[in-house]
Amino acid sequence: MIKRFLHPFTVLLALLFPGIVFAQQTEKIDTAIVSKIKDEGMNRSKVMDILSMLTDIHGPRLTNSPGYKKAADYAKSSLESWGVQNVHFDTWEEDFGRGWQLKKFSLQNLGPVYFPVIAYPKAWTPGVKGAVAAEAVYLDIKKEEDLNQYKGKLKGKIVLFSLPTPVKPGFKPDATRLNDSTLLQMSNADISESFGGRRFQAPTEPQRLAYLKWDLCQKEGAIAVLEASPSARLEDGTVTVSAATVPYPAETPFSKRVSSYKANAPKILPQVVVAAEHYNRMVRQIQKGQTVKLELTLETEFTPSAPGYNVIGEIQGTDLKDEVVMIGAHLDSWHSGTGTTDNAAGSAVMMEAMRILKSLGVTPKRTIRIGLWGGEEQGLLGSKSYVKRTYGERLDKAFPYDSIQLKPGAEKFSVYLNMDNGTGKFRGVYLQGNDKVRPIFRNWMKPFNKMGASTLTLQNTGGTDHLSFDAIGLPGFQFIQDPIEYSTRTHHTSMDLYDKAVEPDLKHNATMIAVFAWMAANRDELIPRK
Amino acid sequence: MIKRFLHPFTVLLALLFPGIVFAQQTEKIDTAIVSKIKDEGMNRSKVMDILSMLTDIHGPRLTNSPGYKKAADYAKSSLESWGVQNVHFDTWEEDFGRGWQLKKFSLQNLGPVYFPVIAYPKAWTPGVKGAVAAEAVYLDIKKEEDLNQYKGKLKGKIVLFSLPTPVKPGFKPDATRLNDSTLLQMSNADISESFGGRRFQAPTEPQRLAYLKWDLCQKEGAIAVLEASPSARLEDGTVTVSAATVPYPAETPFSKRVSSYKANAPKILPQVVVAAEHYNRMVRQIQKGQTVKLELTLETEFTPSAPGYNVIGEIQGTDLKDEVVMIGAHLDSWHSGTGTTDNAAGSAVMMEAMRILKSLGVTPKRTIRIGLWGGEEQGLLGSKSYVKRTYGERLDKAFPYDSIQLKPGAEKFSVYLNMDNGTGKFRGVYLQGNDKVRPIFRNWMKPFNKMGASTLTLQNTGGTDHLSFDAIGLPGFQFIQDPIEYSTRTHHTSMDLYDKAVEPDLKHNATMIAVFAWMAANRDELIPRK
Repeated sequence: MIKRFLHPFTVLLALLFPGIVFAQQTEKIDTAIVSKIKDEGMNRSKVMDILSMLTDIHGPRLTNSPGYKKAADYAKSSLESWGVQNVHFDTWEEDFGRGWQLKKFSLQNLGPVYFPVIAYPKAWTPGVKGAVAAEAVYLDIKKEEDLNQYKGKLKGKIVLFSLPTPVKPGFKPDATRLNDSTLLQMSNADISESFGGRRFQAPTEPQRLAYLKWDLCQKEGAIAVLEASPSARLEDGTVTVSAATVPYPAETPFSKRVSSYKANAPKILPQVVVAAEHYNRMVRQIQKGQTVKLELTLETEFTPSAPGYNVIGEIQGTDLKDEVVMIGAHLDSWHSGTGTTDNAAGSAVMMEAMRILKSLGVTPKRTIRIGLWGGEEQGLLGSKSYVKRTYGERLDKAFPYDSIQLKPGAEKFSVYLNMDNGTGKFRGVYLQGNDKVRPIFRNWMKPFNKMGASTLTLQNTGGTDHLSFDAIGLPGFQFIQDPIEYSTRTHHTSMDLYDKAVEPDLKHNATMIAVFAWMAANRDELIPRK
Repeated sequence: MIKRFLHPFTVLLALLFPGIVFAQQTEKIDTAIVSKIKDEGMNRSKVMDILSMLTDIHGPRLTNSPGYKKAADYAKSSLESWGVQNVHFDTWEEDFGRGWQLKKFSLQNLGPVYFPVIAYPKAWTPGVKGAVAAEAVYLDIKKEEDLNQYKGKLKGKIVLFSLPTPVKPGFKPDATRLNDSTLLQMSNADISESFGGRRFQAPTEPQRLAYLKWDLCQKEGAIAVLEASPSARLEDGTVTVSAATVPYPAETPFSKRVSSYKANAPKILPQVVVAAEHYNRMVRQIQKGQTVKLELTLETEFTPSAPGYNVIGEIQGTDLKDEVVMIGAHLDSWHSGTGTTDNAAGSAVMMEAMRILKSLGVTPKRTIRIGLWGGEEQGLLGSKSYVKRTYGERLDKAFPYDSIQLKPGAEKFSVYLNMDNGTGKFRGVYLQGNDKVRPIFRNWMKPFNKMGASTLTLQNTGGTDHLSFDAIGLPGFQFIQDPIEYSTRTHHTSMDLYDKAVEPDLKHNATMIAVFAWMAANRDELIPRK
């Protein structure tokens, strides 16, 4: 792209439209600053220390839980210790709901053959009192008529709720890096517009049946519900688990459903997800006529309903200090691991980028702000609230850009850079359909080309906090990351632990964020919008 | 190899030495029987039912444990129900030692951040009384002088004994099948003679240090010892665990050491292996100055010392019924999974082969005997005892074949076929240096060539019960198996569970064993010896 401008035709073009060439020339790299950033980020990195504090010591960080609070305190004091200014908890406008943490958990198969069961409770599940021993009943329901045979048989029982999860040998590696052909495909791809948000669809038969099963368990007075860790990804005792299910008839619109973290959530049964191999074993034991007796210890703690909060801090700019470049990642996590790749990795990278920038000893023209968001896992709640209060909102979700009401601050906003796809190295940027930033990012990435980051794709990427900015037309981007083990092993699982982080990749990413933030803060113009 | 005999030179050779060609011609395949065996084995297989009974219902099967007894009872009654004759428990000549089983286990990290720890006790570890809460101490010892700092500091503590285990992303698949280039290498390989048995080597510095660490923990009065699941294979919460360590000074010869299953074993500390990711987290917590408090529940049961026993049964032959073809696998297992791929898979395949052979409605010329061995994991004890009592022994282990004293039964012994390398499909046979069986096995394998089994390698394979036969010069073989996830994921681990078995592979193997056994039982000659 850049090289093409040296073509003779380009020179002619430049004479006719000098502005075009000028726009390109402003993206010159400040090589002295880049060298300093790289030196600090690669040779004196603190990213793994930060990561360990966010995970080993303060993780997991379920939104509004005591762990989240401790991690937020740690982030605040760390940012302050590096000289980041105005660090504060940014409270959302309304109650998020309750915090929750696990106090004690154990699931034991007492026999006929004893074995300790690999399992993890869902977040916001209620507990049971003491160690409760009960017979396991397998709910072998494939159609509505099958429900009848369980009437009168679930009281005081622990229910194996789901069908067994098929387990297959791992012929594909858990971890991969993007190869050239995938990157080329991305590079050549056209934009694929898609806006987040769950659309209501006609309920399917499995959804209808699922509600009837939940309803049966509750009405019959089961003690607890066990489900197999879901299939199609990873097994080997790894448990994929998120929030407790609040059963609703399939017809109920999402807007009428109350999540398990809300203070007004309906009473639900204790819910535990079991490793596929152990769940399947129990099903086979029962199917072979064995009486399986389980002992469940499940002590959970709810904290009072309260507003959620983000951690915000900034490096104040000089002559353009009212204009803002923002970097961020969500600080909250799920609860069965320590939320390392989702998303202490992103938080640590952004904190480390701020530390690197403060270490430079020079002040950027624009203000560089960090946002560590809460409630991402419950629907980008923290970033949405921040954007709404600070920059504006989309009044009608059905009409993406027609109903945007911006606040004055939005005019001074340049760009938001987010990370939330695991531990993998940045290999490029998703342009979210904004082709105008292509030459800019192309130039900023040059110092990282030899390290494997060079691909720009028009494609959108979704599912995380840059969408909150993108939704009101502000430039918000995520990076193309090597997948490593994110979708196969760590995303929302009990194995999302510190050891799954890849140190060189996180150093690379923090350095690259620092360079991008610096460039955005010091270029002549704001980042162009779509 | 077979094709070469059709070469003109071969015809000349045949005229000069007709016996050679005759030997080839006797290996004709009885295609009617092969078809029947394949039909029964592929279309009416019971191998997965047998496997589930040996694992889900009666597993794990630690030697002499109640689980082993239940599995042996099940194997005996199943074989009997299929018409297998003389099924009996074959008791070894001397005491094995104690049985052991886990009654209850839970390891909880009480904080400062609560999490349930993925871990598994070593076999034959003693337990602790009730739920014991204690502080964790990390024994950060890299050289002898480091020991001093822990004196007076381990009493009443739970010790993190090992260094952390490095965890790396899984860029290689867990599961593989052998490709042509590997098979070709094996096919072209020369014999690599190697006899089993541990040779005493000069103690290394790490071994010396390990003993000093154990000694320190015991003398100081630690409550229990935790070790990280070892590295270089698998992680993701999978725990590799075998027998409890009885610490001896590195200089003590193996012959003077008493294993933890022996009634006269020295008193040892309770020992637990922790998943690498969780162990490493605790080490980092401690290294960051946190006081880690653990709660250990570890209730174990020892059964009285007693002789070990195998399960033996047979299909009695007709005119050559005094001659014996034997198939077998070890029935015992480690204890943290259900011993599925090590080695319920082999046991189920051999039992299924017997069932298939009984289903044919015809009787073989020679007797076909099955041996399901105990004590394999403690040193091939069951098969060694059986071979010694039945066929003879090698009096001096230093002189492999010079000191063999055979019993009369050995003359009537044809061949022993074993399976003990996981769930993977048979791709060929290790000839154990016996080139004379090459043309025989080449022919027997023909009905399985299209299914991927066609490779013969002169190479030895070791580590399991065919060595007990091979050690006294009797033909004993194992098959080349697809590795699937054996060395990466299931071997001696908490993930050695039923779902790791691959049904088509086990059907293939049972069918192939039935064909090989039938062919061996009905050919004119015994299988030639080395």
